[in-house]
Formats: sequence, structure tokens, C-alpha cells
Amino acid sequence: MGSLVKDITDREVDFAKWYTDVCKKADLVDYSSVKGSMIIRPYGYAIWENMVSILDKEFKKLGHVNVQMPLLIPESLLNIEKEHVEGFAPEVAWVTYGGSEKLEERMCIRPTSETLFCEHYKKIIKSYRDLPLLYNQWATIVRWEKTTRPFLRSREILWQEGHTMHATSTEAREETLRMLKVYEDFQRNYLAIPVIVGRKTEKEKFAGAEETYTLEAMMWDGVALQNGTSHYFGQHFAKAFGIQFLDKDNTLKTPYQTSWGVSTRMIGGLIMTHSDNRGLVLPPKIAPIKVCIIPIGDVTNELSSLEAKLNANNITYKVDNSDKTPGFKFALAEVKGYPIRIELGKRDLDNGFITLVRRDTLEKIKVNTNEDIISVILELLNDIQTDMYNKALERRNNMLYKANTYDEFKKISSNGNGFIEVNLCNDPHCEDKIKEDTGLKSRCIIDKEVDNTCIVCGKKANYKVYFGRQY
Amino acid sequence: MGSLVKDITDREVDFAKWYTDVCKKADLVDYSSVKGSMIIRPYGYAIWENMVSILDKEFKKLGHVNVQMPLLIPESLLNIEKEHVEGFAPEVAWVTYGGSEKLEERMCIRPTSETLFCEHYKKIIKSYRDLPLLYNQWATIVRWEKTTRPFLRSREILWQEGHTMHATSTEAREETLRMLKVYEDFQRNYLAIPVIVGRKTEKEKFAGAEETYTLEAMMWDGVALQNGTSHYFGQHFAKAFGIQFLDKDNTLKTPYQTSWGVSTRMIGGLIMTHSDNRGLVLPPKIAPIKVCIIPIGDVTNELSSLEAKLNANNITYKVDNSDKTPGFKFALAEVKGYPIRIELGKRDLDNGFITLVRRDTLEKIKVNTNEDIISVILELLNDIQTDMYNKALERRNNMLYKANTYDEFKKISSNGNGFIEVNLCNDPHCEDKIKEDTGLKSRCIIDKEVDNTCIVCGKKANYKVYFGRQY
Repeated sequence: MGSLVKDITDREVDFAKWYTDVCKKADLVDYSSVKGSMIIRPYGYAIWENMVSILDKEFKKLGHVNVQMPLLIPESLLNIEKEHVEGFAPEVAWVTYGGSEKLEERMCIRPTSETLFCEHYKKIIKSYRDLPLLYNQWATIVRWEKTTRPFLRSREILWQEGHTMHATSTEAREETLRMLKVYEDFQRNYLAIPVIVGRKTEKEKFAGAEETYTLEAMMWDGVALQNGTSHYFGQHFAKAFGIQFLDKDNTLKTPYQTSWGVSTRMIGGLIMTHSDNRGLVLPPKIAPIKVCIIPIGDVTNELSSLEAKLNANNITYKVDNSDKTPGFKFALAEVKGYPIRIELGKRDLDNGFITLVRRDTLEKIKVNTNEDIISVILELLNDIQTDMYNKALERRNNMLYKANTYDEFKKISSNGNGFIEVNLCNDPHCEDKIKEDTGLKSRCIIDKEVDNTCIVCGKKANYKVYFGRQY
Repeated sequence: MGSLVKDITDREVDFAKWYTDVCKKADLVDYSSVKGSMIIRPYGYAIWENMVSILDKEFKKLGHVNVQMPLLIPESLLNIEKEHVEGFAPEVAWVTYGGSEKLEERMCIRPTSETLFCEHYKKIIKSYRDLPLLYNQWATIVRWEKTTRPFLRSREILWQEGHTMHATSTEAREETLRMLKVYEDFQRNYLAIPVIVGRKTEKEKFAGAEETYTLEAMMWDGVALQNGTSHYFGQHFAKAFGIQFLDKDNTLKTPYQTSWGVSTRMIGGLIMTHSDNRGLVLPPKIAPIKVCIIPIGDVTNELSSLEAKLNANNITYKVDNSDKTPGFKFALAEVKGYPIRIELGKRDLDNGFITLVRRDTLEKIKVNTNEDIISVILELLNDIQTDMYNKALERRNNMLYKANTYDEFKKISSNGNGFIEVNLCNDPHCEDKIKEDTGLKSRCIIDKEVDNTCIVCGKKANYKVYFGRQY
């Protein structure tokens, strides 16, 4: 089937290697001399553009507006909220010189922009009339990670960060959950990723947040990927920055805050959920190119007619007109993960049909030339989307475990990856012990009644929690 | 007319102060504790989003694709092309620490990305089949400017940079001019700015370019704003980076390169071309909100009916429902520069009409309630767009001068701003002398026959050139 496929390591052999092979072979990313950063190539960036376009519309529907804050944060500004600076200072890039002049105060490249937003909010929030304030920013952030992997953990990240301010804690909590739901719907319906959503434990929440909600995706290998977060900040930052508003009752009050974000990491999640040993598999709703046409023999008229129909129906496609063999083109289309491949062959056409191949199952479908091919394609795209979600869901469900005792927990975790449900108390030492003994970290709190004692210390359990290895 | 207007300095009194007043009062930008950087507020960012959306579609129509290169450039990479590093090294921000660790090699935040693109191109360009390579990037760049002004000159700039590679110099030159034309059409048709386009002199071209084309806009005060550039690089960078491709004739060749960019500076150009002492004036085609409705009295039914019509016709609008007086709302609508203000008054409606006010001329138009208001609005938006362009064109034409002698040149330039046409030789010393004596710099070469000798040295002239003061 051509050299492209052979170059991808089997995921059963080395999942990490398989992942970077797919990223590279599908032309999603390339490396540069900038260690820890990646180049997002046109095909990878087109996936991101689709994500941005869909999410941005959802945000705006709910009344959010976009802004652009500075890229750099002066050290004194970063230092204002204590927990926050402790969480981020160790992993920021510091700018110390402008041209040949040493800066009086060094600045970091934003690792996240809470401090910048709060400084601005202090100036522009005066009255209850200014609330709620629903801001979002699409931006590049930098976190100086030691070990990096394309999309999953890199020094430069493209993301969006929503930062909102509300008159009451009720409204802010509602916003936190509303945006979590936007993310959840997007990841389920577009990315076909069956995320588990829930609150983080005290130990795992964001530096400076009162509550952190997370979207936990399970990768093909059973390892967790935190695929987005939504935070309720309460008044922590607002107090640290002295943000106040005059309420209707004519008293000064401190507003309540949220923040929420997703990033290019979602592309990594897409790959590790759906792709296979032949390369990328993309859910149709997020694929930049839905259909790849491979003409075989002289099919000029049929090709133009097909292209006209696809254009008229706004179905994105590409035609592989290169001078390679059909076999090579099939393999390439598989590496690239186009949801449907159309083999437009002279011989097939003479026999009255066109061959469609689903990328997810590799199933071949013969379509009679009398049939309405657009209906077939639209239905097939729909089926692929649904089937990919269900397949991922089934796989994930098969890797959900329960442990009633710590011994059981250790046994399950040593057998392989997946999420393990346990009863846990809220003493962070119990989570620490699990991490030490097994390497697993808590993913999120499960919305179920607690029915037992903490598996570590045996004291009263506070919640049920999923544990898992993480990317 | 309310305090908002009074807070804007008259442009006849202090143009610089007027400009920053408009930027601030119209809620386009705010300052932060990050010196030299600005916050682009939602209303300002919405203008940028419109610019991005229109240009991005044009770029894609012509076959360009978007990518994302790293934010940081290692010093050794920046140093590869000599002229380029000399041009940019004095004004870059240097990252020297990652967390608490000193970097082995310092990195600058990209001031522009030629070096990153070229490093990548060296890896991915192998054959004539890979050409042309038509890449674009939407990005934040940093240039450590000493004196900064919102949109015009700031340390952080949002922009796009196109970087393309071609098999022949003819194709690359065509691309350079094609993209210049895209910019020109955009600025004329959407921004209503009558830009003058032309080639830069040797002295004023981009660091590393063989030819630089520019879009020179003349601001209300007669000062020039370079509102975009398109460069033909020839093989300079390609040779410095060792980029080669195997051509159809089976020989290795060096490709030809272009780059082209526009930035948030265009927002500054918009303001300084069209706005007035009452605030912002936006051309309808780029205005985020075309219509501002101010209800006066109980007009609930008429308002819903009007909103329904505007929605059905995709005309963006806002309703000012605040508890301020109509007079305050009128002034605010003027500060914000909504192209049309609709005064939806109970008394007017009882008398059978609705009042529309054009922002550009402040003319009041009474529309009979029997008339199709949407047709009136659409026609008016169209008229405003055309009239704004023509007004700016007339004003610019009135500030175009010609000087046949150097004495004449000095006399004209001491009388006020504007562009002065002169005959010039290609010795950079003559441009230097003009700069020294008068502060004026060459804007661009004019597409006209040379008919005289250089106004400075009296030797054979090589071209006609516009000179002007610049932002």
C-alpha cells in the first residue's frame, strides 16, 4: 500500500511513536530549531481554524465579545495574586532585554491572562450596569515545559481564554457550567470525543480558582487527556486586584469571576481518540476536507460533474491529480484521514458505479451512477460521525473500572490503563499516596452518591473520583 | 450635546491628542501597565475581526493557506540573513530565561517571520511540484519601539504575513503585485481610504528585499501612513538558507520569494482618515455595527418590528436602551461612529415618520413610515461608503503638490503637510539631505515619465517620487 503507511509505527507496539508519526506523516506539524515549539502546518491549522470558527460562534451567541490583551506581563503584575504566581512563575519565559537595553522590570510572556484582565477590569467596572462582563481572547500563550509533544504539551500554545465578571456568585457559577456545557457539546458533537465532565478535587484545581471543572477524554490507550477546563474563581482575583462595583442598592460590592479555556491540545485528543495504524481518522464535522477524489483513467467529464455537485452542496473536497499510482493515492488519503475517499475509475464507471471508501472502517461502498451521489455522501458523513462517537464511547466504557479497596485499585492499575472509580476523602495526602504508589492522578469527581469509605485511609469518603494516568 | 464630545480635543488644535482621545472615548483601546502595549477593547477588536475575515477570504480565494510558526526565534536563526538581522536586531525583545533557568541561547519574540518560514521551506521544498507555496500567518509580533501610539506604533502588533515561494522570478513578481492589489482594493472599497500605491526607493525598502511596494495613505492632517507593504525578495533569503528545488529539467534551482503584510495599523489609518471632532466615523463596510437605534418614548412595537427587519436582512445594529437622555445617546452614537443612527421617537411615529441620521455628514433624513425602511438604510449605507471615499480622495488630492526646484520643495514643505512630487536620482544621499533639511521621507515612486533632473543634486533624475512627513 505504499511507503507512507509503512512509516507509521503500529500503535500496539509504541503508542507514543505512533502518535508523533501520525502528526508528521499527515502533515499536521513540523519541528523547527525552536526547541519545544512546533510549526502547525496548513492541514493541522485548518483543523484549528474549524474549531475556532465553531466555538467563536457559540461564544458570541451567548453574548461574549473578543478582546486582545498584551502578550507580556510585568513581573509585579503577575505577583499580585499569590496562588496564581506560585502556580505559574516556575514555567514562564522571561523577557529581560528590549533591543540592547536591559529592562528595568522583566516581563513574562503570558502563560494565561487573568492578571491582565483583572487590571483592565479594575478600570472599566464601575457599576452593576457594567455586569456581566463577558470577554474572550484568542491568543498564543507560553509555558516553559521541559518535555514536549506536538499539541499535547508544547511551549507555545494557541488557545482561547474566557474571562467573565458577574454581580452574584450564582450567576458566575451558572456561567462556569454554561461554558463547560458548550465545550462538552462541541467535543461530543464535532470531535466525536465522549468526554467525562466533572469537578476537579481540591488538589488538582487551577492556581487561584475556587472550583475547577474539567473535560476528561480517554485516549485509545486508556490514558487521560484534560481537554479543557472551566473555573469558578469566586472573588479571589477581584479582591486581590481591588475590583468593585456600585450595586443597585448603592453599596460597593466585589464581583464574582470565571475563566474557561480550550486549546490546540484538542487536536491531540482528536488524533489519539480516533486515528489508527494507517494514519489520521477525522470526524467529518471537523475535517477540513470531507471528500478526496482519486480519478483513475480518463474520467474528465464525470470528475467535473462530481465537482460541480460537491461545490453546489458546500462539501469540501480535494482531487488527487498527482502523477503517483492509485495505490499510493489511496494510502495517502488514508494517512490524511479524509472521511470519504471516492475512487472515480473509468472501468467502474463503464460498469455503472463509483466506489466510495469510508476512512473510519475502510468499508467500500459501490454507488450506482443512477443514484443521487450527494445524498449518499451526506448520509455517509453523518453515519461516520455517529459511528466514530459510538466506537470511542464503547472503547472508553470498556476501560472504566471500579475499585472497592486499595489492593483492588493497585491490581487494576497495574493491569493497564483506563479510569478507575473509587471512594475518596478530601485529604490531599490520600491523592498524593495514590500518585506515589501508582502514578495515577485524580481526573474528576463523579456525580454519584458516595457509598463507602476512602480507599486509602479508610475514613469517611467525601466523593467518588476517577483516577487515571494522564498526558 | 453631553460630556463625551467635550472630552475630545479638536483636531485643528492638537491632532495627536485628538487621535488618542478618539481611540479612548470610542472604546477602541485602553492602556495597561505594560508600557508600549495596548489593550484592544471589544469594539476595536471587532473592527479587526472584520478586516481579518474579509482579507482571509481573499487570500484563500487566491490559493493561500494559513500556518502557525513559532513565536520565538533563536538568535542564531535570526542571524542567518545579514541585512535582515541588521534591520531588526536593534528592536527585538529578548527572552533569556525559561522559569528560573538561563537559556543556553537567547531567543527573540518574532518581529517578523521570514527566518522561521525559510527554515521550514528548506525542509519541505524539494521539487517543482511543491511550488508555488502560498503560505500566510495571522500572528502577534513584537518590535521594541521607543515612542508608541495606539495602532500606529506599538510594541505588540497583530498582523498577517504572507510568505510565498515560486519557481520563477516572473511568478514571484506577479504574486508581489497581485497581493498589493488585494490590499489596495480592500483599503479603497472597504476602508474608503484612497491609498497611493507604488514602489519604495532603494533607501526605504524592507531589510532583505529586492523590491518593496507600499500603500501610502494620507491622513486628515496631510501626514503619510504606510498602510501595508508587499515585498519581492528575489533569491536573497532562499540562498542564505540554502533552499533549492529539483525543476522539471532535472536541475537544482533556487526559488524566488515574496512577503506581504498588513496590520492593526490600518485601524489607525481608518480613524485618521475619516473621524472628526465628535468622534469616530466608520465606513459602513467595515463598521461592526451599521445602525444604532435610539428609542424615545414608548415605541416597543415599532422597535420589535424594526429589529425583525434588520435581522432578516443581516444588518448589524444595536439598541441603546440605557437610562441616559436622548441627547447623551445621540452624542455617544456619534463618538462610536455607527454609520446610521435611527431616532425612533413616539412623537415622530405619530406624525408618520422615523428620523435617520448619517454619521458622516450628520444630515437628518425623515423616512415616511409607509416607506420600505430597509431599502432606505441599504441605499444610505451605500451612499455613505461612496461619499466617505470621495471626500477622503478630494481632501488628499488637495494636498498633492509638485516641486520643480529644491527651494520650491522647501517652501511647500514649510507651509504644511501633504505629499510633494519631485524628480529624484537614485543616490541615497539626496534622500538623506531632504530628510535632514525638512524631515520629509520618500513615500513611493510615482508611475510617471521622468521629465527633469534631480531636485537635490541636479544630476539625471531616475524617477518621480512623493515625499511626505510620516507616522
